[in-house]
Amino acid sequence: MSSSFGQLFRVTTFGESHGPAVGVVVDGMPPGIGVDPAEIQRELDRRRPGQSALTTQRQEADRVEVLSGVFEGVSLGTPIAMLVRNTDARSEDYEKLREVFRPGHADYAYQQKYGVRDHRGGGRSSGRETVGRVAAGALARAALAGVGVRIAGGTVQVGEERAARRDWDETERNPVRCPDAGAAVRMAEVIAAVRDRKDSIGGVVEVVAQGVPPGWGDPTMAKLDALLGAAMLSIPATKGVEIGGGFAMCAKHGSETNDVFDGEKYSSNFSGGIAGGISNGAEIVVRIAVRPATSIGKPQTAATAAGGTTTIEIGGRHDPCICPRVVPVAEAMAAITLADAWLRQRALRGRDR
Amino acid sequence: MSSSFGQLFRVTTFGESHGPAVGVVVDGMPPGIGVDPAEIQRELDRRRPGQSALTTQRQEADRVEVLSGVFEGVSLGTPIAMLVRNTDARSEDYEKLREVFRPGHADYAYQQKYGVRDHRGGGRSSGRETVGRVAAGALARAALAGVGVRIAGGTVQVGEERAARRDWDETERNPVRCPDAGAAVRMAEVIAAVRDRKDSIGGVVEVVAQGVPPGWGDPTMAKLDALLGAAMLSIPATKGVEIGGGFAMCAKHGSETNDVFDGEKYSSNFSGGIAGGISNGAEIVVRIAVRPATSIGKPQTAATAAGGTTTIEIGGRHDPCICPRVVPVAEAMAAITLADAWLRQRALRGRDR
Amino acid sequence: MSSSFGQLFRVTTFGESHGPAVGVVVDGMPPGIGVDPAEIQRELDRRRPGQSALTTQRQEADRVEVLSGVFEGVSLGTPIAMLVRNTDARSEDYEKLREVFRPGHADYAYQQKYGVRDHRGGGRSSGRETVGRVAAGALARAALAGVGVRIAGGTVQVGEERAARRDWDETERNPVRCPDAGAAVRMAEVIAAVRDRKDSIGGVVEVVAQGVPPGWGDPTMAKLDALLGAAMLSIPATKGVEIGGGFAMCAKHGSETNDVFDGEKYSSNFSGGIAGGISNGAEIVVRIAVRPATSIGKPQTAATAAGGTTTIEIGGRHDPCICPRVVPVAEAMAAITLADAWLRQRALRGRDR
Amino acid sequence: MSSSFGQLFRVTTFGESHGPAVGVVVDGMPPGIGVDPAEIQRELDRRRPGQSALTTQRQEADRVEVLSGVFEGVSLGTPIAMLVRNTDARSEDYEKLREVFRPGHADYAYQQKYGVRDHRGGGRSSGRETVGRVAAGALARAALAGVGVRIAGGTVQVGEERAARRDWDETERNPVRCPDAGAAVRMAEVIAAVRDRKDSIGGVVEVVAQGVPPGWGDPTMAKLDALLGAAMLSIPATKGVEIGGGFAMCAKHGSETNDVFDGEKYSSNFSGGIAGGISNGAEIVVRIAVRPATSIGKPQTAATAAGGTTTIEIGGRHDPCICPRVVPVAEAMAAITLADAWLRQRALRGRDR
Repeated sequence: MSSSFGQLFRVTTFGESHGPAVGVVVDGMPPGIGVDPAEIQRELDRRRPGQSALTTQRQEADRVEVLSGVFEGVSLGTPIAMLVRNTDARSEDYEKLREVFRPGHADYAYQQKYGVRDHRGGGRSSGRETVGRVAAGALARAALAGVGVRIAGGTVQVGEERAARRDWDETERNPVRCPDAGAAVRMAEVIAAVRDRKDSIGGVVEVVAQGVPPGWGDPTMAKLDALLGAAMLSIPATKGVEIGGGFAMCAKHGSETNDVFDGEKYSSNFSGGIAGGISNGAEIVVRIAVRPATSIGKPQTAATAAGGTTTIEIGGRHDPCICPRVVPVAEAMAAITLADAWLRQRALRGRDR
Repeated sequence: MSSSFGQLFRVTTFGESHGPAVGVVVDGMPPGIGVDPAEIQRELDRRRPGQSALTTQRQEADRVEVLSGVFEGVSLGTPIAMLVRNTDARSEDYEKLREVFRPGHADYAYQQKYGVRDHRGGGRSSGRETVGRVAAGALARAALAGVGVRIAGGTVQVGEERAARRDWDETERNPVRCPDAGAAVRMAEVIAAVRDRKDSIGGVVEVVAQGVPPGWGDPTMAKLDALLGAAMLSIPATKGVEIGGGFAMCAKHGSETNDVFDGEKYSSNFSGGIAGGISNGAEIVVRIAVRPATSIGKPQTAATAAGGTTTIEIGGRHDPCICPRVVPVAEAMAAITLADAWLRQRALRGRDR
Repeated sequence: MSSSFGQLFRVTTFGESHGPAVGVVVDGMPPGIGVDPAEIQRELDRRRPGQSALTTQRQEADRVEVLSGVFEGVSLGTPIAMLVRNTDARSEDYEKLREVFRPGHADYAYQQKYGVRDHRGGGRSSGRETVGRVAAGALARAALAGVGVRIAGGTVQVGEERAARRDWDETERNPVRCPDAGAAVRMAEVIAAVRDRKDSIGGVVEVVAQGVPPGWGDPTMAKLDALLGAAMLSIPATKGVEIGGGFAMCAKHGSETNDVFDGEKYSSNFSGGIAGGISNGAEIVVRIAVRPATSIGKPQTAATAAGGTTTIEIGGRHDPCICPRVVPVAEAMAAITLADAWLRQRALRGRDR
Repeated sequence: MSSSFGQLFRVTTFGESHGPAVGVVVDGMPPGIGVDPAEIQRELDRRRPGQSALTTQRQEADRVEVLSGVFEGVSLGTPIAMLVRNTDARSEDYEKLREVFRPGHADYAYQQKYGVRDHRGGGRSSGRETVGRVAAGALARAALAGVGVRIAGGTVQVGEERAARRDWDETERNPVRCPDAGAAVRMAEVIAAVRDRKDSIGGVVEVVAQGVPPGWGDPTMAKLDALLGAAMLSIPATKGVEIGGGFAMCAKHGSETNDVFDGEKYSSNFSGGIAGGISNGAEIVVRIAVRPATSIGKPQTAATAAGGTTTIEIGGRHDPCICPRVVPVAEAMAAITLADAWLRQRALRGRDR
């Protein structure tokens, strides 16, 4: 259970990697908002494989179909279901993995949890599940745009290479989706080298939200930090999240990290735009740790369902660094989280912002 | 809204720092489990102020009263409400802060969110809210103990000082709650020096769960990583969380970080005991970034409700490093999260583990 | 689990009949609303036993204490916890019922569900649990009053006696809480006669909501009918609910029951103020079937935990007709349901009504 | 929002009557259960229009497609999405209703709620939304069958005609779906006469669940009565629900309606199989009041969006009595509710029953 995220802007994804389709139902999109299938498709195109030599060469068109909740170009306030058919499902590639638990993958955990699994391409644990998230995120972005909120994101670290700048208009101009054009070149070299060694490498993705007014997010259990954290850690391959100053603050003093507010702006943003779980008017800044992709071409030792181990080589088409494709997913999850926070705050105060 | 955490083991806290009381309702404690108020009290005593020279000198007895859900020493399966009266509420200390938004605190965000706030001691944003979490966590621990799960935690970094060992039996023997006795001494010195400068310092708290069988946690949106992440980031002063290898994996390769499983054990634990959002049988390892406490004695510039700024000195009794007191809270939140995951898995498979 | 009702105006009750206390946490009360403990107490006084010769003679003062969420007479937007101590707990009365399952009561079902129970006074299944509902309902009423919504209710049938009028100002003037003064006299006679025979009798309670604007309630699964229905059927001793025309419509034609709307008012109200699950601007009308109280003084056959049966006489203090005391509870549940629907609609449209 | 029902067996429907498709996502179907698309189709065939001369003559094939969550004939434990394309969408029939609010329909309430609506065929308020419920119910039935629970239902009243018998094997043999063959003939005559007058008539549908063990359902807010009540009142055209003795108990005494239990069976079933909100081992019995269909061919006065009124004649294809088609929907909602209660009880006790 619990393929859902959000309370008022509620997103439920479905689908296995090699089943008939993947998709999503968004329940809670406010009525009267323009919904343009082309915009949804554009976000899906950012996520899909085969975009550059740095990503997997699988070719999936990922054409979205809007099934409900939109009438004459406008949201009805009713559930919006969206569907993407699985087309490039070379299931036979996976037949030999039926009885094998790939290292780093969720195969064994799924088998233990459910007692049954769709072994083809990781089934439900595949990154393909994020298609639904990105489609839902496109709706969330449209809703947020109406209240002046903009989401941006990019790859800010690959291996030891770090972005020194945050030029969010740059990210779509390079295949790494790095907001620093110079760092992007170096990151691309690192990724290409790793790819040629049939290995993978990790990185950091950053997402920011601009224009969020103070007051979004609930204190205690539903802090905006907590909801964004859950959103980010629900993305496959993420193993860490930090807000604002994050882990670097552990070695700092309060006199350094207390953002001083003069009633209009903050002297710094160690809080990452969130104080006590509530947006404070500053830019919201979230970073996530993306582990090296677990699917690698190198020979690996793997446990088998029968007991014992075997050596496997996972053929073909994998992402040497998943970060560029995580960017639109992380943006989508941030947008979904903030759309939900926005609606909760509307409920609390009975006004738009 | 949303002072609740968990779906089946559902914890709802209430209370302001200087109101009549703080407390919690736990709805979903399974029936037939021994509930010993002394055990709950012991956990609260670990959290309360005034434990050592390294923590705030406020004296609060924090006596817990169990109001419901327990009969003849055993849980009934009905909601367990627990109450702690606020006794040391020196509200007058805060009167001058009624119209001031303290730097780093949630004062301004609360005011913007609600249009009204209890300014005394941070009201609902006070760390005092965690009393209810710790009491609930004691119940979760009792429930988990029955299925062989043990939670432990400690301070593993203060400033630049890091623990090199994880001796969980050591943590309660030193005031820092560090699992490395040698590092504990150095950490204590750092904290004392910071305290004398009327400043504060950050750190890292680690929590582990031993004995969790494979299969807990749901894929996609309710990944165990995501739920633990939300749990941890809902704790005041936390600004980051990582599972297993965490951010350090960003500079590594898949061939290094793919934990090799031989059917019985793993060669490494970069996954932190969670694969695809589901426990994989290895130890669960979570670390959280604890920012320097925002309440410091040094003079600071603060915005006022009237507009403009003023200089404030927050008198008295503050924690120079909040980590030692975060430890029992983080353990409690981990226990609550895992108790919930345990019950979900029982629902899914209809058996105890 | 699931002692909670409502999504945005979320009410969680706790407490056993003969434990230390009963109470409630309301999470989602909007901020800035005046909260007067005397008003809460007044509602509790309407619910408490011992009000007239027609109700049980148990004497419980039921003094409410507000523990959180209110500051300087105004709601903070944070959880409001309220507590009522159990004072008149003659537990020894119940010792002989420890191993007996009373007819019509939930004793056996609880034992089978939980494997353990607090047998004293029905424990959690006691009508005493409704104390928390009534306290929460007082908050909901205060919130709704601010947007022009008024809740009223009364006993409209006892045995075969039916109210012919709906004078909601009359209800508090007679002990039956009947909105028809003449019928009230006859109903009181029926109840007194039943009481003298150590028996009980059923009835119908009606609740109306005036001033609800069109647009509250969600279509499909969260229809206002469905939420009100759940609210009402969660009240002990209720076994039926109907909206507007209800069961009487089963023998009618569409040409009779289609309320004709002229753009301002309706020709009739068979819909009970709800069309397609959404309020349509007419008065909301709900009626509930209240079964005869299961606690009666007559000798009865009862199953025992050991197997076999025994004859029991339930001594003392019972309600011959529970309707007069159900009225404030049903009003409270209606208010809670509508407060929740109001907040959901605020989330949807971003405006107050 | 809130097109979802259930907590652990969670059903989310989507789709407008004349949009591209209607469908459902079921999140929480336990793994390892056989899923046969033919069984799902069979239930949909019971719901679809055009089955007999007594129902609307619209012809919709309603072919279901299973998109996810099933692998090699078995449920995976992941979300099961199911889709039915809308084929017979004569939208032009409805163009003249764009600016008209039909009497008894939800047109006006939708417009007020959302500020926008799909006027074609009622959009989301159409009975066509129940396609998803019935498909989900087929899964719930399969899950429940595995633990020995059987759901049955039928039309037990049309106008003044009542069924005197409950032969659940009879219901599919007559077009009224009445469990009393003799009454079915009389009911069919009543319906035919109403149809010929271009009018409609109400009725009562009863659903029973056999084989439910004691212990399902939660006390207080999530009573099985309350959940079943919400499930039933969420079905279009229902305006009342009763459990067991229901409204008839209002005129009875406790000494009559207290079901006497001898440790094995009950002397009567006024509780309808539910005591204190928890199943007590007896047959669960629920009845719902189905109002006369609001779509009738007779000329009617209707309000217009522009203000004022007009006279409309709703042409064509309507159900003179909706009961026969409500039966499979009510059974589905009962099955969904009970599947959810089953899973909750598994969570509570960690065993199958």
